[in-house]
Amino acid sequence: MDWTADIEAAATRISTHVVRTPVMGVAGFGLNFPVRMKLEQLQHTGTFKARGAFNTLLKNDVPAAGLVAASGGNHGAAVAYAARALGHPAHIFVPEMAGPSKISLIRSTGAELTVVPGEYVNALEQARAYETASGAMQIHAYDAVDTVAGQGTCMAEWQNQGLEADTVLIAVGGGGLIAGALAWLQGARRVVAVEPETSCALHSALAAGAPVDVEVSGIAANALGARRIGDICFGLAQAHLGDSVLVSDDAIGAAQKALWQERRLLVEPAGATALAALMSGAYVPEPGERVAVLVCGANVAPDPFEAR
Amino acid sequence: MDWTADIEAAATRISTHVVRTPVMGVAGFGLNFPVRMKLEQLQHTGTFKARGAFNTLLKNDVPAAGLVAASGGNHGAAVAYAARALGHPAHIFVPEMAGPSKISLIRSTGAELTVVPGEYVNALEQARAYETASGAMQIHAYDAVDTVAGQGTCMAEWQNQGLEADTVLIAVGGGGLIAGALAWLQGARRVVAVEPETSCALHSALAAGAPVDVEVSGIAANALGARRIGDICFGLAQAHLGDSVLVSDDAIGAAQKALWQERRLLVEPAGATALAALMSGAYVPEPGERVAVLVCGANVAPDPFEAR
Repeated sequence: MDWTADIEAAATRISTHVVRTPVMGVAGFGLNFPVRMKLEQLQHTGTFKARGAFNTLLKNDVPAAGLVAASGGNHGAAVAYAARALGHPAHIFVPEMAGPSKISLIRSTGAELTVVPGEYVNALEQARAYETASGAMQIHAYDAVDTVAGQGTCMAEWQNQGLEADTVLIAVGGGGLIAGALAWLQGARRVVAVEPETSCALHSALAAGAPVDVEVSGIAANALGARRIGDICFGLAQAHLGDSVLVSDDAIGAAQKALWQERRLLVEPAGATALAALMSGAYVPEPGERVAVLVCGANVAPDPFEAR
Repeated sequence: MDWTADIEAAATRISTHVVRTPVMGVAGFGLNFPVRMKLEQLQHTGTFKARGAFNTLLKNDVPAAGLVAASGGNHGAAVAYAARALGHPAHIFVPEMAGPSKISLIRSTGAELTVVPGEYVNALEQARAYETASGAMQIHAYDAVDTVAGQGTCMAEWQNQGLEADTVLIAVGGGGLIAGALAWLQGARRVVAVEPETSCALHSALAAGAPVDVEVSGIAANALGARRIGDICFGLAQAHLGDSVLVSDDAIGAAQKALWQERRLLVEPAGATALAALMSGAYVPEPGERVAVLVCGANVAPDPFEAR
């Protein structure tokens, strides 16, 4: 398939519906080199996932029953947001572990919402059953071509904004965002996958030579806690991935705190995971290597306005 | 005086010490027109004030006794940060009303800190006494040429980033930020001053024909609560200001909440004050008028990491 054409088409398709998120260069975080950042957490509903959702809805015929999605929170919010923006009904199945902040974010879009006890895979089962019964269109959170092409517009946009980097660090859950970046870059820059030690579906798949089921837990699990890496991501990672590193929950928490205290960027643990690889030394750039970090999620819990 | 030359010189002087803060275009906030934003709250210590502090320290000989500043919090944090970055001692006098978040922000820079019961004017008195006794250099929070020239680099930078706007809305406390913008623009764009109803030193001065003392209170008072507008700001406002509008505390709170809920920008009330003028209708642009909002402060209380 022609990912370049798909991602370019996606970028055109969604351009009036998504935010062209800002970029900045930053010194600090205890690092002796600057870091380029793209602030994709300022995207609609607080993550990159609106890109894939809009691409899917705009490219395909949507049935009268509308949309169905299973989501740890962020994908569901993005699908619900895009559905409302384009006038489609949506039913989102959210695992309980998503937490009240993400659940209320989805509820605020006006979508129908079912909270499912357990984790992502349990919500996915119910979403599939609903899809069969209702005829609603399922949007997979990460392992679908239109989703990946949509997420790929994030890296394409960053390049258009003049990204100067040899290496880009990207957090991985199910792999939609990094798959989009790998599909767009095709090896033109080094891409480093960063996963929590407690939730590392890509790392485990690369070690095993094929996607395998993993246990998920830890502070970023409600966003990065995919039990199995997407097949699309796995194939692209085998072809183009520069490195795969793991970070501890403590390292993620430290990066999340530093992003607020040093730079006034309030992000969720998943949004700080890529930076955590630099701060913790899980990824150490060569002298002169220019690094960039994709900041991907802002849906922190507790929500600072809920907590008051 | 030649403000253009002063601000250009300041921009060169401070360029390696401050953040080139990002810009973005945003739709939302219940408005039927897009808003350009500069995210100056991502500057060092969370406000534009690092610009004036670095300009002052780099342009002048600093005595061995170092720096002294009186501040509602943000200016003190900026002076303390710049002093440490450049290797000078600093003593900051903070009014108690600044609150624990801002006080701990200053403390984190390693500066000496005296918390003064009362409001800004009380801290200023003690700072002046310390200046006389110690020989330390005083940096005024807003009414000094080097401070204003430093803050003016914010608008100069925004223009270099391709700002497309007929009108720029800027929150006003003592007037340093808007003075810098007026000094740089010299009427080339319409500048709208936005103040809380409960703290409106510029609005009152314009009505009276001269700076006058005002009472200060309300949710933005610890950042915008200057009792008297700066003379430099007042002169520039008489010459170049497009409009002066007031917003209620409720409008400020609604804008602050919307910036987080819609755009994942966590800002302090002062940082949301300019947007509040659009959301509340205190300033209504003409059809086709392109508007921009300078987001100027992120030091929210309670700090989201303190609150946990």
